[in-house]
This record gives sequence, C-alpha cells and structure tokens, in this order.
Amino acid sequence: MIYDLVIIGAGPAGLTASIYASRYGLKNLIIGRTPGGTATEAYRVENYPGCSAMTGNELMRKVLSQAKEYQAELINAEVKEVKKEKNFFTVKTDTRRSFRAKTIVLAMGLRRRTLGVPGEKEFFNRGVAYCPTCDGPLFKDKVVAVVGGGDSALTSCLFLSKIAKKVYLIHCLQYFEGQKIWQEKINQEKKIVKIFPRRIEEIHGQRFLTHVILNKQYKNKKRLNLDGLFIEIGSLPAEQETKFILGLKIKRDRSGYVIINDSGQTNVSGLFAAGDLTAPANKLRQIITASAEGAIAAKGVQDFLAKNRLKTS
Amino acid sequence: MIYDLVIIGAGPAGLTASIYASRYGLKNLIIGRTPGGTATEAYRVENYPGCSAMTGNELMRKVLSQAKEYQAELINAEVKEVKKEKNFFTVKTDTRRSFRAKTIVLAMGLRRRTLGVPGEKEFFNRGVAYCPTCDGPLFKDKVVAVVGGGDSALTSCLFLSKIAKKVYLIHCLQYFEGQKIWQEKINQEKKIVKIFPRRIEEIHGQRFLTHVILNKQYKNKKRLNLDGLFIEIGSLPAEQETKFILGLKIKRDRSGYVIINDSGQTNVSGLFAAGDLTAPANKLRQIITASAEGAIAAKGVQDFLAKNRLKTS
Repeated sequence: MIYDLVIIGAGPAGLTASIYASRYGLKNLIIGRTPGGTATEAYRVENYPGCSAMTGNELMRKVLSQAKEYQAELINAEVKEVKKEKNFFTVKTDTRRSFRAKTIVLAMGLRRRTLGVPGEKEFFNRGVAYCPTCDGPLFKDKVVAVVGGGDSALTSCLFLSKIAKKVYLIHCLQYFEGQKIWQEKINQEKKIVKIFPRRIEEIHGQRFLTHVILNKQYKNKKRLNLDGLFIEIGSLPAEQETKFILGLKIKRDRSGYVIINDSGQTNVSGLFAAGDLTAPANKLRQIITASAEGAIAAKGVQDFLAKNRLKTS
Repeated sequence: MIYDLVIIGAGPAGLTASIYASRYGLKNLIIGRTPGGTATEAYRVENYPGCSAMTGNELMRKVLSQAKEYQAELINAEVKEVKKEKNFFTVKTDTRRSFRAKTIVLAMGLRRRTLGVPGEKEFFNRGVAYCPTCDGPLFKDKVVAVVGGGDSALTSCLFLSKIAKKVYLIHCLQYFEGQKIWQEKINQEKKIVKIFPRRIEEIHGQRFLTHVILNKQYKNKKRLNLDGLFIEIGSLPAEQETKFILGLKIKRDRSGYVIINDSGQTNVSGLFAAGDLTAPANKLRQIITASAEGAIAAKGVQDFLAKNRLKTS
C-alpha cells in the first residue's frame, strides 16, 4: 500500500493540501498530533476572508470537517523519520506504524519561542503558559502578564483582560510591532498596563509562580508579582521535532525556514512543504497564507505525479 | 488628501488587501468595476477552506462585507492611468476623479481568453458566452457546448447539464486537465457528451448562433448544431485594461504576468501586486491563493510605509 501523498502536520496548510489532493483524486494521509494545528489556539480570527469573526478552534473545525468530507485519513501520531528510497518515501511514526508515499508535504508549522530564562521550564504549567486560549480561564480575577509585542501578544492581552483582574504587557522594545487596531484597543482597556522596554530576567515561585524579576526597575522595583505569565514572543521552524528533515538534506534559509519553489517543492524531488515553516510569503504566518501554500503544494504534487507517472489511481 | 494605499481591483486579492490594510491602520481605497471580481461568477466553490460549498457570489459577498466593516472605501470606476511622481502615485479614472496614493496594489486579475475564430465576436451575447453562471439560465432545455478542458470548463458543464437539454464538452487535447473529481462527475452525467480532440474553426448563425464547424468530423459531420457556446479556455493578464501599467515599466514574465517579490512588491518602488495577475504561486488562480497574496501585499505596504516613514496616521 503506497500513498500518493503523506502530509505531515494537520494545521491549515496540511488540511488544505489534503482537501485539494483529494479533489485531484490523490490518495492522501495526514499525520499530525493536533487536528487544526496551532491555529486552534487563536483567541479570535477576524481577518480570514469569507468567515466572520470566530475562534481559531471554530474555524479549524470547519476546515477539518471539509477535509473529512473527502474521506481524508488522519492519524494522530508523531513522525520520527522520513527516508527516501528510490522513488518512494518511508515515514516512520512513534506508533510503530510506517507508511510509504510517492510524495510528502511537510506542514508541521512552527515551534514556540521561549524566553530561555531561569524558572521558565520549572514553572511551565504552574503559572508559565504559552496558550492563553487554553490556559487563560485558569486565571480568573488573577494578575497576569503577557510578554511580547506582536499580534499574538496584543490579542492575548485583550483576551486575558476579560478574565484576569490585571494584565501587564511586557515588551523588550520601545514600540509594539502588532497591528495598530490591537494597540488602540489595548490603550482603551484600563485593566492592561504596558511595561516597556523591559525584559524578564528571572521567574520565581514556590509550588506556583509568584513573581518575576525585570532587567530595570518599574515603579521603583525590579520585582513584579504575578499569578500567571504568558509568553508570546513568536515561533521558530519546528527544528527539534523535525530532526528527520535534516537527514533528507533539505535546503533552509538562515533562520531555518524551508526553501520552496513556486510549486511548493523543496530541493528534494517529491518532497514538498507548505505553511509557516516555509521561507517565502513574507513570513506572514496567517491562516490564509498557510492554506494557500497547502493548495499550491497539492497542485505541485499533482503535477509532479502526472509528470512522473507515479499516480496510483 | 493622500491615501496610504490605492487598491486597483475588487476581487479576492483586492478585498483581502483592504481588510489587512485597514487592520494595519492604513487609509485605503479600492477602485474596481465588479465588487467581488470574477470570483463572483464561480458556480460553486467547494474547496475554499473554512467555508462550506456555496456560490462564488455568496462567498465574495461575505468578503466584501468584511472589508466594509472596516469602512473600506470602494469606488466603481475604471483606472485609466497610474503615474508616479516623486514618492507618490496619481491614479486617474474614467469618472474624471483622480486619487493620490503613497502605494498601489494592482489586483485586476485576468482577462478571459478567446478562441479567436470567425463568428466569435459577432455572436457574443447572441449564443456565445463566457460566463455560465451569468448566462446559463438563458439556455433552459437548449443544446449547448462548453469549450475547454480545465476546471472552469468541467464545472461549467456540470452546471449547464442541470439547465440545458444536452451539453457537449469540446476540447482540443486528448485528455482533460481539470480535477479528477469533476471528470468523474461528468462521466456519470448522461446529458454531457465529450467531443475530443476537436477544435472549433467557425461559429455560424443568423440573428443567433445556430452551429459551429469542427476541424474534424464528429459522427460523420463537421457541423454541430448548438443554441449556446460557452468558451472556458482560461485567462490572460488583463493587458488591454492595464495599458497604464506599461507606462510604469513593470517587469513581467513571458506570458505577461507581473513579477513580484516575497513581499508582493514589483520592481517599481511602492507598487505592489496580488492575485491572479502575478507570476508566482504556481498560477493556481484560486480564491485562497489570491486572498493570501492580497494579505501579503498589505503587509508589504505596511512595512514599506513604516520603513519610508510615509504613513499618514
């Protein structure tokens, strides 16, 4: 049994690749740990064309059900290795199951960036969090902080201000990079207090987080008491989870993003990539751009198989 | 009064560029003749992630209302000229109104390709048509033909088979390029008769279309009687409508598609492009890819203005 296509990753890029591949008549399998991907963690998606404002989870459930309408196979597993043998790929997972495929679409997205300061690992899930949508509700009427200056940080602040008593927005730069519309909303929200430019140098607590230490004083103190700390400082290509890529000698840019051509193909024949882990598309990392790359990769696969007469059905 | 951004074209690319630009706080104006663009002519959109099957018109109405939520200005006009003066562009329309803008996003999409055979122009709108969604209902219980082999041709056949008595699908190649799923549906539909490989050489009629002449016999005759002929053989960059582009010396590829970088910018500083008229993205020409390019161009504009300190607000 050989798949026309195995898609690694079940976010917007992977699911859209599956929808398009199914419509091209390609037998495809999606392997991923999180149906819907990290997009499901978005508190509120307002700018996806054609869909009125909804949570990332709602939007991705819709995409997932579309993929399933075409009988897309979805396996909850982690890929451990991808090997190329002649014209075929072998994909090994942590479930002892292996799969053979004529082509691969890599769509694993990004891994969250961490602060890398003392206490961050120790207090993860004990005050330190990376997903406000998931963990926000735990901090009702508490004092929390969000670290970061981009859209994720700003929208997380707004979300948390509806739950928490007080929300500090801590950013290391003099300005915030996120959309102006979010910045204006933050300025209107009295519960949110901006602290910048400041860095967090240490994270402290007992059983749970109690406070952080800033690099410079804020209101005469370097210590800031907190119940929760949300770290929203962006993401990197999922290198740790994708060690298997390196074995295939895929070309990446300096930051580690996978380089693809206009058809979504990497430098390895038959190996495609789509979504946030790729280098192009201005690194906008939106659901709309990841989905578009998924569609393009599926078309690339279709053309590749047609050209190489590798199509099964 | 100088706009941060004037968007030329009101299809998926232009509208998405507007949604993103508005959210970046950029004062933007959309100039276009057809709100929703040619996407509104799609009989049925099944593969737009996040939206269940609906007509192109329904989908684009949703996108349009999203753009309007941000008070996007939309002007029904045709652009006659774009001039660059120092750091600004002047956009002249056929309504005698001119607009000044710091940046431009070209998003005019494509122009339909024609057969270029005798009778085609003469019988346009008198049997010859390019938009089944618009004109299909006129052919209830009639005999029609669709020319082409791609997705547009195949889906048009399926649509017309629900209205017409008989639908011929005429294609010049030995195979059809469209998605397998459409081909299978066509094979199941008894009203649809495939004639291939055949070309149409002449189109004849009196007041209205009566028949076409094929290059080779079909059932012992070169003549094929028809009430309607739908030409669905793809599109080209809207060169005629975009003569004004040429004055700006924009780089295009051999087929006339506008070349852009990863930020959506053309070789002309401050001039961006998005959607079906651009060269990259595997020329997939889907609503999802055009929208993604619109978002990317808006981000490109935002970065360009921030970098050049040209932002008004």
